[in-house]
Amino acid sequence: MNRPIGVFDSGVGGLTVLKALRAKLPAHDFIYVADTARVPYGRKPREMVREFAWEIAEFLIGVGVQGIVIACNTASASALPELADALPVPVVGVIDPGVEAARRHTRTGRVGVIGTKGTIASGVYQRKLEALGLSVWAQACPMFVHLVEEGLADSSDAELLARHYLGQRPPVDTLILGCTHYPVLRNVIQSAVGDSVTLVSSADVTADLVSQTWGGGAGAGQGCVVHYVTGDVPSYQHSAQPINGTDGDLIQLDVAKLGR
Amino acid sequence: MNRPIGVFDSGVGGLTVLKALRAKLPAHDFIYVADTARVPYGRKPREMVREFAWEIAEFLIGVGVQGIVIACNTASASALPELADALPVPVVGVIDPGVEAARRHTRTGRVGVIGTKGTIASGVYQRKLEALGLSVWAQACPMFVHLVEEGLADSSDAELLARHYLGQRPPVDTLILGCTHYPVLRNVIQSAVGDSVTLVSSADVTADLVSQTWGGGAGAGQGCVVHYVTGDVPSYQHSAQPINGTDGDLIQLDVAKLGR
Repeated sequence: MNRPIGVFDSGVGGLTVLKALRAKLPAHDFIYVADTARVPYGRKPREMVREFAWEIAEFLIGVGVQGIVIACNTASASALPELADALPVPVVGVIDPGVEAARRHTRTGRVGVIGTKGTIASGVYQRKLEALGLSVWAQACPMFVHLVEEGLADSSDAELLARHYLGQRPPVDTLILGCTHYPVLRNVIQSAVGDSVTLVSSADVTADLVSQTWGGGAGAGQGCVVHYVTGDVPSYQHSAQPINGTDGDLIQLDVAKLGR
Repeated sequence: MNRPIGVFDSGVGGLTVLKALRAKLPAHDFIYVADTARVPYGRKPREMVREFAWEIAEFLIGVGVQGIVIACNTASASALPELADALPVPVVGVIDPGVEAARRHTRTGRVGVIGTKGTIASGVYQRKLEALGLSVWAQACPMFVHLVEEGLADSSDAELLARHYLGQRPPVDTLILGCTHYPVLRNVIQSAVGDSVTLVSSADVTADLVSQTWGGGAGAGQGCVVHYVTGDVPSYQHSAQPINGTDGDLIQLDVAKLGR
């Protein structure tokens, strides 16, 4: 079972998930697709993002992955569970692991979730959390992704926006970081909400789930990563610097050839 | 003289310049290159942006433009005057027109300029304004471009960030909007600085200059625009909605074929 695991995101945010996966599964190989030609997904119509997710998933199936991790909340909200139903390999998103972790962590039953406009507007986190009997506060934070991509995670801009988005929250004891960029902002978010609030990172909990389900044995790969990038490769490398950087091969993927 | 005028930007920001140009030169044709595969330029190294500007300028020469407007402050700061010196057609940037307009408008001799990190770090506005004997305050506003691209120009996020970036300014009576996205934020910027400060839009003053120099006669074109887009075309159309939208033909331009 030495086929690689496919991971995809609109851009560099999913590298937080890839990093967590590689830490849990050091002997597995990974293929990471960064759809930087069409980043960001967060403000695009749901149907458009759903189509992007289908195109990339079919590319990954074509190159022979053993399973797919949708390392993007917006794409997970738009294209799961239909991809999981239709594809011949397991497909894992970042939403269910985050919901499950919030359920485990909360003591008061009051949880918050922050994400892109698209993720929050989809209502997917709210529905899943409320179905568990939890009380939910949800807030779109559209500027957070740009703070990360601009390398401003530790700036006064970030502190200001964190207070803006999070200052009016009702009492919650657990906050889901419902966007794969947000772990990079962990310090500034924790400061804004205080130490009594537990932050749930999709990256970590998704990696836990994947390693439990696909991680049997030591793995037969070499711990390698190949990055397929739909946009400009040097620009991708530059954007990735604040988020772990890119090691492994980098290959240009023509977005026009991704059509179904 | 019915060859089109070439206009380029990293993305949709330059559409503010294109709109102003078309208003001044309604019978001219335009070719607009949006380098959305590599947007944003504002945080990238100067040498990288300079290379992008050369590639696009040479593409525009190849398709036969009569002149080029660099509708991007970061690219103007990185690649002018060398492009103007080397190319066989006139090349106009957005910086000199803005500087000249600020000189005309200021009464106190104290002017401000706001722009991307790249533009402000280049020091180009500061040097040109100081060479005219003006006192200059310069401020990078890295989140402004994202407010516009997210369609958040009239949001509380925009008001907050405008106060953040502009609240500590010394007394200036004129403020140059040194990024082609910023005219979309004109209302929120004007509110933050007060009505006593004159805002100078690169878009308007560049269009004035171009129409004076190239606009002799009624023009022999048809008032058409062709958009060449290096990234995903539907994503470009979506991002352009808050900035005038796109009319005219839309053509995919393969960034890999732009090399010198």
